Amino acid sequence: MIAILRHGHRLERDKRITTHVALVARAFGADKIFITTKDEQLARTITSVVQRFGGTFTIQTGVDGKRIMKEWPGTIVHLTMYGESLDTGLAKIDRTKDLLLVVGAEKVPRYFYEAADVNIAVSNQPHSEVAAVALFLDRFTQGGWETQQFHGKLTIKPNPRGKTVETQGS
Amino acid sequence: MIAILRHGHRLERDKRITTHVALVARAFGADKIFITTKDEQLARTITSVVQRFGGTFTIQTGVDGKRIMKEWPGTIVHLTMYGESLDTGLAKIDRTKDLLLVVGAEKVPRYFYEAADVNIAVSNQPHSEVAAVALFLDRFTQGGWETQQFHGKLTIKPNPRGKTVETQGS
Repeated sequence: MIAILRHGHRLERDKRITTHVALVARAFGADKIFITTKDEQLARTITSVVQRFGGTFTIQTGVDGKRIMKEWPGTIVHLTMYGESLDTGLAKIDRTKDLLLVVGAEKVPRYFYEAADVNIAVSNQPHSEVAAVALFLDRFTQGGWETQQFHGKLTIKPNPRGKTVETQGS
Repeated sequence: MIAILRHGHRLERDKRITTHVALVARAFGADKIFITTKDEQLARTITSVVQRFGGTFTIQTGVDGKRIMKEWPGTIVHLTMYGESLDTGLAKIDRTKDLLLVVGAEKVPRYFYEAADVNIAVSNQPHSEVAAVALFLDRFTQGGWETQQFHGKLTIKPNPRGKTVETQGS
């Protein structure tokens, strides 16, 4: 089980970035995303993608992030540009346990650095939590997304020059 | 030389996503980003990051994307969820030539699929152009970002539990 915890999502400002974080989480092998801010529109957007493109990814908004971290039975990884390198951090993760991957929308409380088992930087340069989640999941699952099947109503097939969309009877 | 061409950026709606695309381009080894829409605020934001965190990344907004593609002397790769798989596409790229990586903000004209030498899907699932650029550059440069040095005024050093920021005399 891989879950993402998105902290500090601001309704208007972060709408599209958090949507991208959630879609990336799903596409790269996570099972669930928790969003600390209540946002029913965001939940509908993500649920609609799951209904069309398949898989079992779920979203829950308006959660108590601190409580989720406190009660998490597995490993907690906090993604931050200040953390240790991806390779070093990955080596410290017990892969037999459930993983909670925490990403902030802006500055996160000091508590996050302490509650995390590992603070990991996907590059120490400023860039994007969207890319950080993608790269982390890519490395953690060893490229599992490249062969994952979602069995959705809609399936896009690789095409070198055009678009191939397959639709299952609904 | 690796350049990114961002097509169809909408000033308000795409402001933060395009900023993330540009920062990811810089952090993962691109040299330059072209934005088809004129956006001086965006250019200032990115230039300010370069001035603080180093490197030689440049941004040019308000460009004619079609013309850039027509006159590009090297390889053009279009990132799209409809394209062929990352592995298959990467094998077709001549690495001795300059690379132009094209990413749309929404639907792109048919022309893009035809003008590109290769149309590549970083997963055929819906997710994010921010993640697609990061994963593509990661694979294309074989993880070159992990050792790249930017020699900026500010350097963030890996830290397992806190924040280490080094400042060079300015």
